[in-house]
Order: sequence, then C-alpha cells, then structure tokens
Amino acid sequence: MSKEILDTLITPSDTKIIFFIIDGLGGLPMEGRGGSELEVANLPNLDQLAAQSACGLLEPVGAGISPGSGPAHLALFGYDPIKYSIGRGVLSALGIDFELKPGDVAARANFATMDREGRVIDRRAGRISDTTNQQLCQRLKKEVFLGPDIQWFFEPEKEHRAAFVLRGEGLSSEISDTDPQKTPFPPKEPKALESNADKAARLVKEFLAQAQKTLQDEEKANMILLRGFAQYHPIPSMSERFGLKAVAIANYPMYRGLARLVGMDILPPCPDIAGEIAALAQNYEKSYNFFFIHIKEADTKGEDGNFAGKIKVLEDVDRFIPQVLALRPDVLVVTGDHSTPSVLASHSWHPVPVILHSKYARVDKVDKFDEISCLAGSLGQQPMVNLLPLALAHSLKLIKYGA
Amino acid sequence: MSKEILDTLITPSDTKIIFFIIDGLGGLPMEGRGGSELEVANLPNLDQLAAQSACGLLEPVGAGISPGSGPAHLALFGYDPIKYSIGRGVLSALGIDFELKPGDVAARANFATMDREGRVIDRRAGRISDTTNQQLCQRLKKEVFLGPDIQWFFEPEKEHRAAFVLRGEGLSSEISDTDPQKTPFPPKEPKALESNADKAARLVKEFLAQAQKTLQDEEKANMILLRGFAQYHPIPSMSERFGLKAVAIANYPMYRGLARLVGMDILPPCPDIAGEIAALAQNYEKSYNFFFIHIKEADTKGEDGNFAGKIKVLEDVDRFIPQVLALRPDVLVVTGDHSTPSVLASHSWHPVPVILHSKYARVDKVDKFDEISCLAGSLGQQPMVNLLPLALAHSLKLIKYGA
Repeated sequence: MSKEILDTLITPSDTKIIFFIIDGLGGLPMEGRGGSELEVANLPNLDQLAAQSACGLLEPVGAGISPGSGPAHLALFGYDPIKYSIGRGVLSALGIDFELKPGDVAARANFATMDREGRVIDRRAGRISDTTNQQLCQRLKKEVFLGPDIQWFFEPEKEHRAAFVLRGEGLSSEISDTDPQKTPFPPKEPKALESNADKAARLVKEFLAQAQKTLQDEEKANMILLRGFAQYHPIPSMSERFGLKAVAIANYPMYRGLARLVGMDILPPCPDIAGEIAALAQNYEKSYNFFFIHIKEADTKGEDGNFAGKIKVLEDVDRFIPQVLALRPDVLVVTGDHSTPSVLASHSWHPVPVILHSKYARVDKVDKFDEISCLAGSLGQQPMVNLLPLALAHSLKLIKYGA
Repeated sequence: MSKEILDTLITPSDTKIIFFIIDGLGGLPMEGRGGSELEVANLPNLDQLAAQSACGLLEPVGAGISPGSGPAHLALFGYDPIKYSIGRGVLSALGIDFELKPGDVAARANFATMDREGRVIDRRAGRISDTTNQQLCQRLKKEVFLGPDIQWFFEPEKEHRAAFVLRGEGLSSEISDTDPQKTPFPPKEPKALESNADKAARLVKEFLAQAQKTLQDEEKANMILLRGFAQYHPIPSMSERFGLKAVAIANYPMYRGLARLVGMDILPPCPDIAGEIAALAQNYEKSYNFFFIHIKEADTKGEDGNFAGKIKVLEDVDRFIPQVLALRPDVLVVTGDHSTPSVLASHSWHPVPVILHSKYARVDKVDKFDEISCLAGSLGQQPMVNLLPLALAHSLKLIKYGA
C-alpha cells in the first residue's frame, strides 16, 4: 500500500513497540543435522512465544533478492527498500557510526599497494593492522589540505578499510571509482559523470594526489583506492513518518548508523546480549515508544558457515525472551533482517520467520519458531516493509482509512 | 494485477455471481470465550460450504490498515481502494441514499450550539432528536436561497447530523472546514484552498449566514458546522468495467449508496435478513448476473463489543445459506468487507475469511469457516481487490490473457 496513505493515519499513543531483531535469523537445513538452525535449536521460550502470537514469514526486498544490511533494515523500519536506496559510500560511513550531514559525499576507501610503474599490486595493502590504519589516517589528517571551504574525513574501519567523506557546498557523488578492481592495473582517474560533479571530482583527485605523497614511503599502504561514491540525502525520520519516538540498542556501528538514518536515538554499545537487554529494561520507562534491539551474532555465525555456532547464539538469545516479555510491551516483534543460512555462509533471499505478539494478534496454530512451522502463521508470507504498519496497527497507533 | 488488463479480458456470459457480504465478519478471540466469534459460533451450513469450496483470507486495503466502509466495499467490488478514494462528504451523502450528480460538492453537517459571544459550545447541539433535525432541515429549505443557478440540499441523518450538497456549475470542494473541532471556539471561515474554489466558498459562506439567521431563535441547534468537503466524480461502473449487470440488496443507506456509486441497481430496503434473502430469490431470474447482498448486523454487534450478539447474528445468517445455495449460483462468495472484532469494538486491519464456491473452485481441506481454519485455504491470503477478478474467472467471464 502507498506509504503516503499510511503516514496520514498515524495517531499519537503511549503504547510501546519492541522490535527484537536477530540478524541473519532465517536459515536452511544442513545435511546430517536434522533441519535448519532454528529447527534444530532448543528454543523453549521462543516456541512458547510463537504459540501465543501471530506468526509468519517476511520477504525483505523481493523474490530471490538477498539484501544487504542497509535495505533489510530499512524494510524493517517501514521504509520501501527500493525507493529509499542508500549508496555504498553512505553505508560505509554509517558503518563506522560517522555522523553524516546532508550533502556529504562519502566513498569506501582501501589502503592499497602500488608498484613503481604505478600499478596497483595489492588492493588491500597486505591487510595492514587496525593500528597501522589508524596511524595512517592521522597522518593524512595532518598533511592533506583541500582549501578553507572543504571539510574532509578519512576514518579508519578495520584492516585496510576506511571511509572517506567530503563536506562542502556544491558537491555531487556522480564520480567514477578509482579502484581498478583487478591487479596489476593502474588506479583509475576519478571522473565527473555529470557536469555538476566537476568540483567534487577535482577535490577527490587533489585528495588522492596529496594522500599518495603523504604515503609514498609506506611499504604496503602507499596509496588509496576509492569506490561507491554516494551523497547523503536525509530521509523522513520515523518520528516524522510514524510519530514514533524510537531508540536503538545495537552493538555494531553499522546498525547504529542505520538507526540514526531514520532518526532514532542511539544508546551506547553494550558488551554483550545481556547488556543490551539490561539497556532495554533501563530505558523502557522513558518517553520512547519504539525500541529497536539488534543481536548481531547469529548473522556472524551464519556468515562463517558455522551451523553449530549459530544454533548456540539462537539458544543464548532464547534465554532472554522472558526478560523482554516481562516489560509487557504492547507489541513485541521477534524476527531477523534477512536469512543467513550457514550452508550458504552468506545473506540469502529466503523469507525470515517472524513472531508478532500483542493482545490483538490473530493467534494461530504455530507453536514452534522455525521457517516451516511459521508457514501456517496468520501473518502469512508478506513483504518485510509491511511489518511496521502491522506493529503500528496492533499497538493502536493507526486510525481508520476512509469513512 | 493491473485492473486495466483485467478490464480487457471481460467476455459476456449468463453465469451468475452472488456476493454474500457479512459486514465486519472477521474477529478475534475474546478471553475466556474459547476463540473468535466465528470459531465459537455454531455454523453448520457455512462449515459445510467451506468444506466444498475454496477458502482464504482477504486484506481489504493494506497491511495494518483498518478500512472504513467506503474503501472496503470498493475493494469488494473490484476497485483499488487507494486509487478510487471517496471523500468524507460524498460518503456522507451516499450514507443517506442521496443521489449525487457529477460535480456535486458534499459535506458532513452538524447542527451545533453557539453562545452569545459567537463561540461553539456544543458541536452536537445536545444531540437533538431525529424529528427536530428533520423539521429544521425543512425550515432551511424554505428560507435559504442561494440564487437561481445553484441547487442545494440539506438532508437529515440522525440526531444532530445532516448532509449538505451544493449543485451548480464551476464548483470545487477545495474548501476548509468550518468545524473548530473543539469548544468553546468560534466556527472557522470556509476558505477557498485554491483559486477555483472561490465560488463554492462564497456560496458556503452565504448558506451558513442565512442558515444562522433561520436558526437564530433555536435553543440548541442555532447554527451549522460543515466539514469534509468533497466533490463527486463518477467512477466507471461495474457494467462498464466488468460487463456485470449488478443489483444490490442492502438495508442500510450507506451500502446502497456505495452500490449506486459503482452503478448497481438498488432494490428497496427489506425489514430483515429473511427479507433480503427473499428479495434475492425473487430477483434471481431477472437479467442480473451479479448480486450484492449485504448483512449489516454482524458489524453492529462487533462495534458494540457484543461478542455473544455477534455470534447470534452469525448463527442467524448461517440458517439462510441453504436458501442461497438453492439458487445454484455459478459463483457464491461469502465474506465480509473488513473485520470488526468485538474485543476491539471497531473496524480492524485483520484479514477477512472468504469462501468461494463454484464448480471450478480449487476445493481445499478447510472444513470450518473461521479465521484460522481459512489460513489453509487454496485462496491463501490476498488483497480484497482480487476477489472480483477471481469471481469473474470462476464464472467463466474472463478470456485468456495473451496468446
């Protein structure tokens, strides 16, 4: 349905919604293991919650589409992940918790190794250490100057990776990548892909020239490659769109960044899941009416192809469900942003099981929380972007459409 | 699917379709009652019909959206309820069975009480009686004159409510409400919200001034408030779009109005459900090939939060199913326009169970007509606007798409 119509039906209310997001939740059976991660795991609390709730499956973006974290979370937050696309550079900056301002142009950056003939021979600079990365970023900060009207940022991620951001008037992100993608080839020129990107392209070129000079004596990281230029355009916040005062509890910077993108308040990172649950409880009585709690580890284990490890994470998570329920939220949703089957060791396109708990939920016959049991759920299989409207409805935050 | 494509596939046929619509059909379990209204009710005929039919659930407008009667019925009749939105003023006029003409501007009207300082102190004029309402409408008719080129109507609903309609050349409904919504505040000026609404705004102003003079000695109903101005734009009829010669059997004016909106013939109101079924039988052999029969009472009981009362209505309705089946329609659909769970005492967003009976239906394993049983139906869960195309297909009124 048109999101614009949904946005007109919002009515203020004190009811509270918790989105308990287990990253990479959905899975697939692995041979010899007797089922999928969810099917094999021992999840007494999630199974009981499923039995008392409406269940179903959510498709993050579309049939066959394996989403990245960006589109998957936008869908969870009620934003059409096709309409609200976020460039890779912007995601990269969000991923290190960098506070972008409107108009900023961001790119993914790699330290790399160039030979004497000017050819890139290692696109990852031998995977330099995080410490080296940080030191080099500091040096760049001291030595590169792009003029008084331009701010720039070069912020370390892990190993050879960094985020590059240009801030100033009249910038555009229509700039071609400098990363040749293959070795041994020279880096590409950053070219303006449309005329109003000339200024930004010139600044990128200047930045790269000065950076190369700064780094010239480095053995490995003697140059920088940039790709995925994207400009940050703010999107309407969850407060503006849905009247939600939202807060994020997430230990990984990417998810804090995505939550910031839709205007959530961000709590400080916690040491572990127990810490996140404690933070939820501590903040529950504050003025927030939407709580996004993000559990990363299931995805990590799935990405590692670690079937047993993912099961262990799910079983760990299961123990915290009673504490979440004890807060008596008006709506509790448990789901993932996408599937990460261990057998694929990557994000996948498979729909993600979902539990929607509310006194107005149409409780179905599902009494086990897994991919196949949830097929019998009253929510059916539907687009993930429908989840937020459903949560709003079940917490009585929507008025009737039409008379 | 695109409605435009559907419309190109229509082929004439003598087959007959009955839409048996139980308003507010869907429900939710109420604590201590052992299930939802449909689950608890004793419905031998509907259960048997379900067992011999294709079942499923229909979502009226979209995820989480609780529809009013207008959009819900448009969806039933095969009209996208977002694309074909009907303004509140138009619905109000439809709701008293008023025959709108293209270009008419309609608004909801309240009799109200104003104090000597010109402030509205009761937006409902102490809920005057229906009789007083009718008398005041008559007086307005006699005493207000807006010029020779403008027709206007002020038609009583119940208590303090009425419908106001302006008819003439060059009108627009882009006029602001006069209802201040809160007391004690003076009424607002009716303002033209775009330049081509100047004429209509001026007429509304003139009407209100003359009406106030007419009503000035009334103790309670000494003024009128107007809101929800909307212009009537005809929409393509079911005959034009689907080649259906459609007739409506509905006891409540709102539903006759909605049926008229899509070009149905309208039979006179009947005293009760038995009367409606008799009217269906009496008209069945006429040239109609689409019969819309509307049972209001389930919604009324749901709106009242009367769980037992809604069950009784459902059981009453159930007894008439054999008489409907005895007509041997090519397609018999039993469903609702939306859910009205007694526990919510209001329209809700929950999908509505549906039975589609036809010799070409894909009969599934559903043998009980309720919200959870229908989840296993061969129709699955789908948008309500799909129902009419499905009925057309099952009555062999659609040709193949493409070669």
